[in-house]
Amino acid sequence: MSSPGMREASSPLQLCRVMLPDDANIMGTVHGGIILKMIEEAGSIVGTRHCNTQNGDRCLAALVRVEKTEFLSPVFIGEVVHVSAVITYTSKHSLEVQVKVIAENILTGAKKLANKAALWYVPCSLQNVDKITEVPPIKYASAEQEEEGRKRYEAQKVERLETKARVEEAIPPPPNPEDAPKERYTVGFSQSSLIHLVGPSDCTLDDFVYGGVTMKLMDEVAGIVAARHCNTNIVTASVDAINFHRKIKKGCVVTVTGRLTFVSNRSMEIEVLVDADPLVEKEKGKYRAVSAFFTFISLDKENKPLNVPPLKIEGEEEQRRFEEGKARYLQSKAKRLAEKERQQ
Amino acid sequence: MSSPGMREASSPLQLCRVMLPDDANIMGTVHGGIILKMIEEAGSIVGTRHCNTQNGDRCLAALVRVEKTEFLSPVFIGEVVHVSAVITYTSKHSLEVQVKVIAENILTGAKKLANKAALWYVPCSLQNVDKITEVPPIKYASAEQEEEGRKRYEAQKVERLETKARVEEAIPPPPNPEDAPKERYTVGFSQSSLIHLVGPSDCTLDDFVYGGVTMKLMDEVAGIVAARHCNTNIVTASVDAINFHRKIKKGCVVTVTGRLTFVSNRSMEIEVLVDADPLVEKEKGKYRAVSAFFTFISLDKENKPLNVPPLKIEGEEEQRRFEEGKARYLQSKAKRLAEKERQQ
Amino acid sequence: MSSPGMREASSPLQLCRVMLPDDANIMGTVHGGIILKMIEEAGSIVGTRHCNTQNGDRCLAALVRVEKTEFLSPVFIGEVVHVSAVITYTSKHSLEVQVKVIAENILTGAKKLANKAALWYVPCSLQNVDKITEVPPIKYASAEQEEEGRKRYEAQKVERLETKARVEEAIPPPPNPEDAPKERYTVGFSQSSLIHLVGPSDCTLDDFVYGGVTMKLMDEVAGIVAARHCNTNIVTASVDAINFHRKIKKGCVVTVTGRLTFVSNRSMEIEVLVDADPLVEKEKGKYRAVSAFFTFISLDKENKPLNVPPLKIEGEEEQRRFEEGKARYLQSKAKRLAEKERQQ
Repeated sequence: MSSPGMREASSPLQLCRVMLPDDANIMGTVHGGIILKMIEEAGSIVGTRHCNTQNGDRCLAALVRVEKTEFLSPVFIGEVVHVSAVITYTSKHSLEVQVKVIAENILTGAKKLANKAALWYVPCSLQNVDKITEVPPIKYASAEQEEEGRKRYEAQKVERLETKARVEEAIPPPPNPEDAPKERYTVGFSQSSLIHLVGPSDCTLDDFVYGGVTMKLMDEVAGIVAARHCNTNIVTASVDAINFHRKIKKGCVVTVTGRLTFVSNRSMEIEVLVDADPLVEKEKGKYRAVSAFFTFISLDKENKPLNVPPLKIEGEEEQRRFEEGKARYLQSKAKRLAEKERQQ
Repeated sequence: MSSPGMREASSPLQLCRVMLPDDANIMGTVHGGIILKMIEEAGSIVGTRHCNTQNGDRCLAALVRVEKTEFLSPVFIGEVVHVSAVITYTSKHSLEVQVKVIAENILTGAKKLANKAALWYVPCSLQNVDKITEVPPIKYASAEQEEEGRKRYEAQKVERLETKARVEEAIPPPPNPEDAPKERYTVGFSQSSLIHLVGPSDCTLDDFVYGGVTMKLMDEVAGIVAARHCNTNIVTASVDAINFHRKIKKGCVVTVTGRLTFVSNRSMEIEVLVDADPLVEKEKGKYRAVSAFFTFISLDKENKPLNVPPLKIEGEEEQRRFEEGKARYLQSKAKRLAEKERQQ
Repeated sequence: MSSPGMREASSPLQLCRVMLPDDANIMGTVHGGIILKMIEEAGSIVGTRHCNTQNGDRCLAALVRVEKTEFLSPVFIGEVVHVSAVITYTSKHSLEVQVKVIAENILTGAKKLANKAALWYVPCSLQNVDKITEVPPIKYASAEQEEEGRKRYEAQKVERLETKARVEEAIPPPPNPEDAPKERYTVGFSQSSLIHLVGPSDCTLDDFVYGGVTMKLMDEVAGIVAARHCNTNIVTASVDAINFHRKIKKGCVVTVTGRLTFVSNRSMEIEVLVDADPLVEKEKGKYRAVSAFFTFISLDKENKPLNVPPLKIEGEEEQRRFEEGKARYLQSKAKRLAEKERQQ
């Protein structure tokens, strides 16, 4: 990851923090959601800073997309997590931030790469929240670098439009895990929902929820689904690309629901849906704000992967989602193999 | 409330904290659950301190019951909340703590009584969590004072036994608010559930959840139910006696469900059920840990009470719960009137 | 502040965070305690990292002293606070960390120096908490730089010994602010106490409280005292050197008491005392862990300083403390003037 430079405003940003007991599960492994929240905090600072280097409306960088991201090594209580973020591409109305997460054991000096992520932001005017302002261009190290950025920009634009259409379909609400005692290892058995009342510290200066806060809630519910399915120590392995189609305002109640879609020998894919309900401004109605797929793995006491119990599928709908999940699983496996070969 | 004195350990305890934005709803009114959590923190400190003034096993005071409590005045962001707790009765294996909550506006100097509560604790040995140790006796100001304490002790003992039987009935799980779009003002429309993964800071030194943490979650879900029903600014008016029958261990997933049981012109009664699911120690199974009735009122912008929309009852079960709620409402109204007359 | 370099471990550390509503008072000004906590987090990371660059016991850097520190400009919600820490001196068993705090408004690009501080740490073995390990030496840019460090080291050593003697006097417990309505502007009127039960996330890996957590609580109580005295928006102006004589363990109840000692036209000096009470390990007894003097100023809506009401002194003890506070005030005023002249 190289810094494109040009103006001080687009210089890299570093943030770090010691991991505390509250950041981790009972085995001492830090939740993926804590890392995602730190990644997004870094991205939103570097993005907002950059977009305000020109004259015109003051604006805040709002997260619109996170590319697929993998958790490369587990992080533990007492380690220091360093997040570095740099702007790597700008279009007229959006910018890409690349983020690297290093976990450092300050007792042994050992460092490991914990995560790499790419986030897309758009600048929203503080005067008029529906107005998207222009992004000042960055200077690239080479024409090639700019061209690669443009390709990533075009690719994510297409995908965002596609999922936008999909999200706006009326997706049927998930069944309730509590209606009746469900059979073990079914989708219904482990399905879970949480609700969260959006408070002041969840929000940016213009009173919309930070993308990182939403991702932390999503990871939390996905982790509960995974633990309910296999009753072991589970950790976030990866998160598919997430698109943030609609913002969530302070005072909303957010319902976050997770359900298993696919299970391989060693991994579980969980679909997470986020619905926002503006309690007081009732005329706005409830809406789907975000959805994403989280992949979890199960670990033993030495942090070695364990087998995952197979998923019992009930009905056509679950079968369809299972097949789609399997396709995503095989595709990402093929991609990993191809990359490995390329590196050899 | 006078301090019974005798030994340093049973001297009153004072704690205070400034109310922050995250403690309050978007109107700036502090959540009842924040106050309940502070009350229980004070009770658990004064109780644990007292029970360790004798030789023998070191122990922690575990909350077993909170008597019915009323929120006498709303508290706002920026105010300082003072909680004072004193032990007012001891039996061989339990003790009563009385707590007073004063909210102080430090800019004007104005003080108001926000809450008064009585809590019962039992000491659990740190060496053996299932062993209940003995409580050192306190000295009473008068024989009369001791006698009144004994009466309170006997009364709550009977009630705890009664509800224990009731809780252990198989209460049918609440229907899912998401199954299908519900008609407005029905019970199903506003019913809400949250789940919470119990973390280190939720727990005492022996890794069981503080009673105050549970009450905060209960108030949170009840508040969401109330806001969904009336779409206005709502506040906790009172909480019926709560019995904590079974403890909840670190690493459990707690599901907290709230549903409207009764609505009067000016108030809503919400039943809140807390189920604990020990994710990893699966053999223990899911269990009902606590249940309670919260009463909320709806306020306008000047904090004056508003009318509440009537509740649309569906089915016999809801009708039965409505009648029971109405009985509780009328009983507590009669009690308030009687007290008012007595004071005149 | 220059980096002494030599080994990677003593390279500077940067941490940053966006200021959220809960970090600030109702006027939007960030609490001094939030800044102090960030400063100490940076110091403890850089110190622990350095002390583990040699073979031997793994150890944690424990805060023993913070030199007098001034808050040079107020920080507001939404600003990004950058903290950079670097090791500037090492003795055989202690090290000095210098810290600089910059607040950045990411909307306007404006940056201001918010604070500069110097902290002293000693490395405590993780195997044996009472063993102090050796500190690897750093390399200095010049002999002069090393000599200046040695002078700072000797000076603080003398002062730490002096205050150690003082702290161990039996200071009588503060009277209860609620006992009786006190006359306005007296010491008793504004005196305040808070208690905090030490939880897991307040602690380092060896279960002792972070110095930064203690300083945050001290600033909180001092802020309440100041607001009670002048009923306006108040902010931390400076903190006198703080010595951390005794560590505080997880599970303790910490009582933090603040009382006015001296008031000038434009400032209030508040003495803050921290007592730790190991609830369960009763044989250890309650003890004074830390004490310090905080200076606050009162601001109007444009953040301009306001006059402070004079303090009504009652009794010889208060008079003595007032005179001592006045001496500190005059001394620090003289020092500021001397520095100003030197810079011209």
